[in-house]
Amino acid sequence: MDVIRTRRDLHQHPEVGFTEFRTASRVVEGLQSLGYDVLFGADALDEASRNGVPSQKELDQAYKRAIDDGANPEIISKMQGGLTAVIGILEGHAPGPTIAFRFDMDALPVHESTENDHFPQKQGFRSKYEQTMHACAHDAHTAIGLSLAEKMAEGSFSGKLKLIFQPAEEGGRGAHSVVKKGVVDDVDKIYCLHLGLDVPLGEISGGSKDWLATTKMMIEFFGVPSHSGASPEKGKNALIGAATALLNIHSLPRHSTEQTRINVGRLEGGSAVNIIPHYAKMVAETRSTSAMVNAELENKIKSIVKHSAEMHELQYNLEVIGQAIPITCDQELITLIKEEAAQIDDFTSVQDYHKGGGSEDASLLIKRVQELGGKGTYMIIGTTIPAPHHHQKFDIDEQVLEPTVKLLERISKRELV
Amino acid sequence: MDVIRTRRDLHQHPEVGFTEFRTASRVVEGLQSLGYDVLFGADALDEASRNGVPSQKELDQAYKRAIDDGANPEIISKMQGGLTAVIGILEGHAPGPTIAFRFDMDALPVHESTENDHFPQKQGFRSKYEQTMHACAHDAHTAIGLSLAEKMAEGSFSGKLKLIFQPAEEGGRGAHSVVKKGVVDDVDKIYCLHLGLDVPLGEISGGSKDWLATTKMMIEFFGVPSHSGASPEKGKNALIGAATALLNIHSLPRHSTEQTRINVGRLEGGSAVNIIPHYAKMVAETRSTSAMVNAELENKIKSIVKHSAEMHELQYNLEVIGQAIPITCDQELITLIKEEAAQIDDFTSVQDYHKGGGSEDASLLIKRVQELGGKGTYMIIGTTIPAPHHHQKFDIDEQVLEPTVKLLERISKRELV
Amino acid sequence: MDVIRTRRDLHQHPEVGFTEFRTASRVVEGLQSLGYDVLFGADALDEASRNGVPSQKELDQAYKRAIDDGANPEIISKMQGGLTAVIGILEGHAPGPTIAFRFDMDALPVHESTENDHFPQKQGFRSKYEQTMHACAHDAHTAIGLSLAEKMAEGSFSGKLKLIFQPAEEGGRGAHSVVKKGVVDDVDKIYCLHLGLDVPLGEISGGSKDWLATTKMMIEFFGVPSHSGASPEKGKNALIGAATALLNIHSLPRHSTEQTRINVGRLEGGSAVNIIPHYAKMVAETRSTSAMVNAELENKIKSIVKHSAEMHELQYNLEVIGQAIPITCDQELITLIKEEAAQIDDFTSVQDYHKGGGSEDASLLIKRVQELGGKGTYMIIGTTIPAPHHHQKFDIDEQVLEPTVKLLERISKRELV
Amino acid sequence: MDVIRTRRDLHQHPEVGFTEFRTASRVVEGLQSLGYDVLFGADALDEASRNGVPSQKELDQAYKRAIDDGANPEIISKMQGGLTAVIGILEGHAPGPTIAFRFDMDALPVHESTENDHFPQKQGFRSKYEQTMHACAHDAHTAIGLSLAEKMAEGSFSGKLKLIFQPAEEGGRGAHSVVKKGVVDDVDKIYCLHLGLDVPLGEISGGSKDWLATTKMMIEFFGVPSHSGASPEKGKNALIGAATALLNIHSLPRHSTEQTRINVGRLEGGSAVNIIPHYAKMVAETRSTSAMVNAELENKIKSIVKHSAEMHELQYNLEVIGQAIPITCDQELITLIKEEAAQIDDFTSVQDYHKGGGSEDASLLIKRVQELGGKGTYMIIGTTIPAPHHHQKFDIDEQVLEPTVKLLERISKRELV
Repeated sequence: MDVIRTRRDLHQHPEVGFTEFRTASRVVEGLQSLGYDVLFGADALDEASRNGVPSQKELDQAYKRAIDDGANPEIISKMQGGLTAVIGILEGHAPGPTIAFRFDMDALPVHESTENDHFPQKQGFRSKYEQTMHACAHDAHTAIGLSLAEKMAEGSFSGKLKLIFQPAEEGGRGAHSVVKKGVVDDVDKIYCLHLGLDVPLGEISGGSKDWLATTKMMIEFFGVPSHSGASPEKGKNALIGAATALLNIHSLPRHSTEQTRINVGRLEGGSAVNIIPHYAKMVAETRSTSAMVNAELENKIKSIVKHSAEMHELQYNLEVIGQAIPITCDQELITLIKEEAAQIDDFTSVQDYHKGGGSEDASLLIKRVQELGGKGTYMIIGTTIPAPHHHQKFDIDEQVLEPTVKLLERISKRELV
Repeated sequence: MDVIRTRRDLHQHPEVGFTEFRTASRVVEGLQSLGYDVLFGADALDEASRNGVPSQKELDQAYKRAIDDGANPEIISKMQGGLTAVIGILEGHAPGPTIAFRFDMDALPVHESTENDHFPQKQGFRSKYEQTMHACAHDAHTAIGLSLAEKMAEGSFSGKLKLIFQPAEEGGRGAHSVVKKGVVDDVDKIYCLHLGLDVPLGEISGGSKDWLATTKMMIEFFGVPSHSGASPEKGKNALIGAATALLNIHSLPRHSTEQTRINVGRLEGGSAVNIIPHYAKMVAETRSTSAMVNAELENKIKSIVKHSAEMHELQYNLEVIGQAIPITCDQELITLIKEEAAQIDDFTSVQDYHKGGGSEDASLLIKRVQELGGKGTYMIIGTTIPAPHHHQKFDIDEQVLEPTVKLLERISKRELV
Repeated sequence: MDVIRTRRDLHQHPEVGFTEFRTASRVVEGLQSLGYDVLFGADALDEASRNGVPSQKELDQAYKRAIDDGANPEIISKMQGGLTAVIGILEGHAPGPTIAFRFDMDALPVHESTENDHFPQKQGFRSKYEQTMHACAHDAHTAIGLSLAEKMAEGSFSGKLKLIFQPAEEGGRGAHSVVKKGVVDDVDKIYCLHLGLDVPLGEISGGSKDWLATTKMMIEFFGVPSHSGASPEKGKNALIGAATALLNIHSLPRHSTEQTRINVGRLEGGSAVNIIPHYAKMVAETRSTSAMVNAELENKIKSIVKHSAEMHELQYNLEVIGQAIPITCDQELITLIKEEAAQIDDFTSVQDYHKGGGSEDASLLIKRVQELGGKGTYMIIGTTIPAPHHHQKFDIDEQVLEPTVKLLERISKRELV
Repeated sequence: MDVIRTRRDLHQHPEVGFTEFRTASRVVEGLQSLGYDVLFGADALDEASRNGVPSQKELDQAYKRAIDDGANPEIISKMQGGLTAVIGILEGHAPGPTIAFRFDMDALPVHESTENDHFPQKQGFRSKYEQTMHACAHDAHTAIGLSLAEKMAEGSFSGKLKLIFQPAEEGGRGAHSVVKKGVVDDVDKIYCLHLGLDVPLGEISGGSKDWLATTKMMIEFFGVPSHSGASPEKGKNALIGAATALLNIHSLPRHSTEQTRINVGRLEGGSAVNIIPHYAKMVAETRSTSAMVNAELENKIKSIVKHSAEMHELQYNLEVIGQAIPITCDQELITLIKEEAAQIDDFTSVQDYHKGGGSEDASLLIKRVQELGGKGTYMIIGTTIPAPHHHQKFDIDEQVLEPTVKLLERISKRELV
């Protein structure tokens, strides 16, 4: 299995959270062909615990597209409705610890660059899907996971290897449902990773910090339509309510001791130019280095939404659709990673920590393992990126892929003796 | 041809502006079967002069749906891209004046009520298309036009009858392209009409006034996306620009002597919850009893948009996508209508004027006729409406249909002797 | 008594509502010297029914200034706290009807122009008081009232003449308290007037219409201060609440059949640049040609204020500080005025109605008289104005003064035989 | 000289920036009586380099009040216009280094609490001046400076002692003018200090960090007034522009790596309820741990103000009225302070650094000294505070005063041998 080729295939077929039908189908096929026990569909996540599931129409379109592009119909029939997690399990020849690795698979609703200085475009593996792009390296993460699976497939070890391919990391939506299914309840140590994050190629840290707690919300405003010329006073304008909420949400105060973030990532509302807008929908998020401060901001947004609606006699609905918490990495795992990375020539700088900076729902997996007495870490592996994460020209230097697979293999073998 | 049955068939198959493929196909077939010369597609409007044409995707979906629902493929192949106007021409036996009637055909992006006290629902002819509804009586207008065509089909008259079935009245988008094609350049008198408008059943006016000048605009804001957690300061937030524009547009001052209207009918922007929104689009409109005051408001919106964008270092684009002007009705036509209506028992109250109240792009047709020395009017025919125009429970009392056809027939025969 | 000299003296000493100490003192002295019975202070208005009374500090400063500028200390000692109404009563020699005239006395918080093309500046009678100006002709109204008093002073008539010099017309604050005192309860006919209002010199109407119902509100927001650098998250920001209210108030929808107006005339809040603003205060008004629509707008503002406050955990306070209603003029009085005006050469155009356009708390006096079976009107007397009412270059053409006095004298003598 | 009594006297007579006439007069008298050379008025600051000077009216009122409350008229006559800096210089008996201490003297526009649990109220030394309060301990700083002056007055040392009593620290307005006068150009080491800042009584740090760069701005919007009822469309509404700017300023994005702050501390505009507001004024500030990020925010505010104004055809004016930069403390001074503090029993916890958290224009003095080859630090001395800085119940525990004087004396004597 060529990690670069796999990565490029996935890059060309990006699928956003809970629509990773083709991606998950490929992962299932790959793991099964290597002899892994594979759990997927309702066996790999708790359906009701998912946050921010796309509309039925979006699920249907993605499902159909996956089949058109080679997904195994039998496999994905068990993923209908977006049950797109895959767990690969390999038992060793002797009893021993359960070691998990987690890889995220989802893409972003970003239109990938068509300019020729963008490497995937130049090399012919740019996204085939309009408005969808692997702009956060999850294509590489999944490819690395599959290559690791191959390296460990002979199974000459003690203990159990558990490879978690998780959907819907973006928006903090997928990990919660994997936790709720009990997937990590038997895990002794969990290793999570991310490429890039402004760390240069050749540099690696065994742990990371400054990950932000976050809450993602979906908000709806319900008003009353009316003809804007004939009876403007009879309408209740949902877009004025939403715009008021948006500006006030962005105006929430900064914090003196904790980092915070606020974003209203999407807003849409209204119907035609001559109808008073009777509906609006938006998605918003808070983040903070403190889970408590994040909760305060979440409550403030709830208050802003409520009063922006009631001010204009609108009804409203607010749902939490995603979440993550800060990460505390265990030093034991950091040290082990550093020792193994030091054995690989490509890693020229090996450190304890880099800054995380965003939010990660792997935090929920790590916290669950730690709550049950296990350990976890979130390592960061540097690579050159020509544009920021989530940008339409984001890319990685593929030189990082092989050494990373090698590192994970070394970690696995050391843990599982 | 049963006017009620025709109206209900159209009601069940509503098509928004420039997607009236099935409707226009039905009209072409009807007129051709009655022996009219029929112009349609590029012969009936000036393609480049259309405002607010839907996206290619929307056009394609509507086109396909029309074929599925019985549109004549040969006919609508000439309407590709939304060339959905139809002109029916019938020459009399002797020379004489050219008399035109105008009927609008388009529906609205409104979700029709499914409650049982809504007559179309109860009678089983509710819209088959989600989020689309004949909520402004254009279904009835078109049905009336076809019945009039039938009544006049024998052609025993002098002069020329010209029936104009116009697309995209909503948003003031279609009439301009019909004018530009020269369709009314040979017309001596033009009669336009609307049902409802808060006039009770049995009441009719030969003219109308207080129609509002209007300008419809499509506005785009272009920013820079960025990860909302990792680098919020690198984004340029298009939704903050748009929300600022929206609130300031609505805050434009009232006018001391003229009526004005303002609406931002639709706004959408951003992509995912964790990406700083880099794009937003909105549609807005101004109206006024004075064309000059309307132009002032249009200019103020242009200023607000420009500065809301530049305030946040956004690029922007603003296009005028629709327009209408006030209507001045000619007394000669009003009087003629009143005389004929007085002969029909169903019309118990006959007046010179009712209030228009909204905007009408028939204004452009009437003005063109008047500029070339002809005359025009816009009559209003009352009917019971259980909910306001554009409301999801809008409906008409179908009792008005037969008498209206009779009235138009009388007008035609008197004009064409 | 020279009406022009009186007007200029008053113009030079403008006093805003309920601080008309010097003005009212002059009126009392004038009326007493002419032999009128004069009611003033608590005898001329109901203290508790006043709306929008200035702060004690403002009252004190104005009181002191009035004494410095020649007000009679004994007289104004009875006006302490802003009891600045004056009623002059003259009984005729025989029984007869009670005829009232109403004149308003207050100025505006406008900084009068110092440019030389501004007539009062050029002629040396510009306001002596910074930020205060007679920019709505009440100086002229009061001067006319005093000249009328002089003309009628001999008293050779039947019935009773009642001259009402009212404070605080601006903001609709004074008339209510005069009504509540019962001042017009014995009045058979009341004549009110305004100069200017875009009516040209030489033109006059006996009545007026389109006066707007109005409500004036004072609104306070109470938050929590905090150091903006050290603990921004501990503040509750009253100015963000106020700015949100302001933009949403201005965004209230226009009305399809009634004229409306909205204004937030003043906003102030916060303390120092490095303190989160903990307090804000604003004054706002609604107006409409319909008293019911005005009440709806008033309620909408109350909702906006409540929710703008609660959105940010602010306390708030809202008080109605002024009001007026539409005016219905009695034709009998209009006709009488027209007949008398026609006898005066200076009035070359005599009409039934002009448009009022603003709001007038004389509406409350007229309505009270009409409720008790009497009649009333509000006449408009044209004069050239170089700038709009309330503008810092507002002025009148003083040529209008003498003929107006003559007209009122003729009306009085005809009514009182 | 009793430091507590001095502090209470100053507390009772708080004077905001550049109006410290009485305070500065007291300082001049104190220093002169002790034999210091004293520079003040135009000799102690550069008049033209002052930022954010109050209006002439405010200066006049404060000047008069100072005289009423015992300021020396001869002394403060040289401070007219707000030249309120005082520099005390004492030459030792032998050549040596020049050592400076800096004390700030100004109060805040905060209304001091009248509740009985507020110590100054209970003890009878609450502010005598409405809306003015020493809510940031500058009264204590000044009192400490005077006591230090007394301790060192015998002058048995080598080198030169320079005591800088600076006006207008709040808002970052005064230090710049002291720097520009060259007051610290001969200084080898400068010691600055603050009491409180959430550090407990008994704790002290020789240095501080995380001081924020800041820019303070005064912004004006100029529109056109108009009668809100009669001609709303003729006004250009300055308050809508200001409210738009305010909400957009608060909506500026957070920064991923630097702390930032935003505040609009004051806004006022408009005149009367029935006049479209033609003027508005606001003060705003930015802060950041990075001088560069602070400059970016400053530029963004300039853009927001410009476009909020031009959007509504308003003129505008923006002036920078205050500034500060981050502080880098020299370890040599930190160590010296720690060594001396360790000798004083009252200081039980002695550290290198505490967090500054706000902004300090002493930063400009320290930077100037460092640029010329000298050294500086900003120490923080803990004391119990019952409410946050700038709060109306702010207070200090006066137990901190004597030990602080003792510490400064020890530092002075060690530096000047």
